[in-house]
Amino acid sequence: MPNASIIAVGTELLFGQTVNTNAAYVSEQLQLLGISVLYHFTVGDNPGRMKRTLALAFEESDIVVTTGGLGPTQDDITKEMIAEQMGAPLEFDEEAMARLDAIMRDIGRGNYTENNKKQAYLPRGCTVFYNNAGTAPGFALEAGGKTAIALPGPPREMKRMMQESAIPYLAGKSDSVIFSKMLRFYGIGESALETALLPIIDGQTDPTAAPYAKEGECAVRVTSMRRTAQEAEAAVGGAIEQARALAGAYLYSTEDEEYHEVVVRLLRERGLVLCCAESCTGGLFAGAITSVPGSSEVFDRGFVTYSNEAKVALLGVSKETIDRYGAVSEPCCREMALGALARSRADIAVAVTGIAGPSGDTCGKPVGTGYYGIAWAGGVEVHERYFRNRGRRVNRSAAVLELCDTIRRKLEGAGGPPEKKILT
Amino acid sequence: MPNASIIAVGTELLFGQTVNTNAAYVSEQLQLLGISVLYHFTVGDNPGRMKRTLALAFEESDIVVTTGGLGPTQDDITKEMIAEQMGAPLEFDEEAMARLDAIMRDIGRGNYTENNKKQAYLPRGCTVFYNNAGTAPGFALEAGGKTAIALPGPPREMKRMMQESAIPYLAGKSDSVIFSKMLRFYGIGESALETALLPIIDGQTDPTAAPYAKEGECAVRVTSMRRTAQEAEAAVGGAIEQARALAGAYLYSTEDEEYHEVVVRLLRERGLVLCCAESCTGGLFAGAITSVPGSSEVFDRGFVTYSNEAKVALLGVSKETIDRYGAVSEPCCREMALGALARSRADIAVAVTGIAGPSGDTCGKPVGTGYYGIAWAGGVEVHERYFRNRGRRVNRSAAVLELCDTIRRKLEGAGGPPEKKILT
Repeated sequence: MPNASIIAVGTELLFGQTVNTNAAYVSEQLQLLGISVLYHFTVGDNPGRMKRTLALAFEESDIVVTTGGLGPTQDDITKEMIAEQMGAPLEFDEEAMARLDAIMRDIGRGNYTENNKKQAYLPRGCTVFYNNAGTAPGFALEAGGKTAIALPGPPREMKRMMQESAIPYLAGKSDSVIFSKMLRFYGIGESALETALLPIIDGQTDPTAAPYAKEGECAVRVTSMRRTAQEAEAAVGGAIEQARALAGAYLYSTEDEEYHEVVVRLLRERGLVLCCAESCTGGLFAGAITSVPGSSEVFDRGFVTYSNEAKVALLGVSKETIDRYGAVSEPCCREMALGALARSRADIAVAVTGIAGPSGDTCGKPVGTGYYGIAWAGGVEVHERYFRNRGRRVNRSAAVLELCDTIRRKLEGAGGPPEKKILT
Repeated sequence: MPNASIIAVGTELLFGQTVNTNAAYVSEQLQLLGISVLYHFTVGDNPGRMKRTLALAFEESDIVVTTGGLGPTQDDITKEMIAEQMGAPLEFDEEAMARLDAIMRDIGRGNYTENNKKQAYLPRGCTVFYNNAGTAPGFALEAGGKTAIALPGPPREMKRMMQESAIPYLAGKSDSVIFSKMLRFYGIGESALETALLPIIDGQTDPTAAPYAKEGECAVRVTSMRRTAQEAEAAVGGAIEQARALAGAYLYSTEDEEYHEVVVRLLRERGLVLCCAESCTGGLFAGAITSVPGSSEVFDRGFVTYSNEAKVALLGVSKETIDRYGAVSEPCCREMALGALARSRADIAVAVTGIAGPSGDTCGKPVGTGYYGIAWAGGVEVHERYFRNRGRRVNRSAAVLELCDTIRRKLEGAGGPPEKKILT
């Protein structure tokens, strides 16, 4: 199994102004190619330190991937240092120059400065990775049994070049094919999920199943490396069926979707329209649903009823209910859901009222308590759910996930999805 | 000026499952102490590579900070490797053991396994940093003119130990004091801001002003290192006054607050209550405002009127306005703001309607176009703002910032803040 090290180049990373997310992304992609990662390094735009880092990385690794330092300024030295390390002098590349020229004219900077041309010089004998999301090209270069892969620093450019050029390049050197899926689970703790999935996690060499920690939920990446794409895909498919048999009740996506994306997809498939009434989440649930392109087809309106007066005025919650049971209560949540349904064109209305913290309310319920309601033409259901208090932000995100789960369980439940509301 | 390197220890970082945010945090804190950072390294739980990394880091750096690898398992080798590197054998620490014991009994795990006791062994002669957010202690160790600082891996534990123990330790070795403020600007581009602030950015050695890139806004960190805290604070204060004179119209916080936090603070100071009507932001603005603890004092309700029907039904926007001008128009935004004000107890109502993308609507306006309205008892104002399309997520976040800016400018404007609405 080949191994690799990743070098991020950029003084802004050492200042702490920018978090190095590139290293995690490249690491994950390399793992998927069956390449293990030994080291991450971050260095500034300093030739001496860059040189020592390259030497150390190559000493132990078959492949060295760099991110950053490919731009037009004097500070950008990655290409020069790799060229020196691998004994491949920089040469002018006609196509790189023509592409640079076209981009610069395109953005109305035809009279660009001379130093921009630096980007058209590339190490002799390299495989050029033209940049489809920016100006600086990257490359792969081989010498003495070692491979250098140079990628740009901006994550958008780096990711695109990784997907379009570096991964095919590295995969082409291998006689096997990788296939992988990310499974997303909600409503089960990480260790409980690992225990449930033990038959596919433990002692398996292919396909492998690796759990990932996520906030408020769990994810498992299932990966297979086989001789053909068909074999790898079939192996992953088999493991997913096993996972479904073992923990299917908690599995909400096999395509690495966010939970609110799944909700929008399920509603669209069933031709149903949603509205919501939010108290403690204060608009976050509506914000998540409407973050999905095309959500206007399935989302009608949202009521952010933060104050008690708003619950009464906008949703018709009775003042008596609030006085008697409090705003964070099963009866209030029920009236919120029914009120939202009655005051919209939606087929389904969800409602949430809870205590997000940092301070609890006066009703004696602990921070993290919430009531979740769902109403449709045929009925209404409310449940209580308590999350361990992990701070206001996390508590609110947990409530948004619980609302998504409430909707999915209703839509996929044994009773079938709710009927469409007949608008008169 | 002393320098440092940071070593993150943990195989999960090399798998790409976890992004190394610790390195950026520690870097920024070290910079504030006047310590420059040469390298970041990430290594797995591998003794050979850990040893080579430590040796390389110490070769060039005065200080080496490690994060991670202090736990109870066999994989946790950071302490052992530092002890070996610096010639300080591990010794049993009574207080560490007593604290560990107390924590374990506290969480009902009094009969913990033998390997947990590993955490009570610390290098001879070190300064122990007891962990106030977890179990594994950290430490500082000096030998041969070099300093090792070992911190735990979980960011919450690491940050707390950095603030409570490591920073005071490092500051105590210096005869100067650092003071720093983060200034936040909105409505001015990064290069325009740099140009405006050139007198305080360029060629200054103390106080320094360093611009940071942020999404949709700009930040500048002003830092001074002087003999006393008073001198440093006065120097930073002077630079802030200069920044205010040069670009004060765009400066919304000198305390590194988020814009929605500033809005909540300004409303609270003036005793005013806000409500909102959102179309393209779909609840995100309400979600941001209600993310601030105590926002219920100043936020009453929000209308997420995603569909045209919702705008008519919930806000009283006239169907004729939408038919004639479209939902993304100045007249529609005006009616949304006025409708929200009339349908709430709030003193101020803001409204936004725009095109978030990815596809534009049929009215021929480009993605990124938005109308922003603010209504109060004495009037209503609407302005158009076009943001270059940078994708749906960024476009929506930009619209939230613009709403915050609309409110701040009204509250701090020449005409004075709006009067309170008289509720009848």
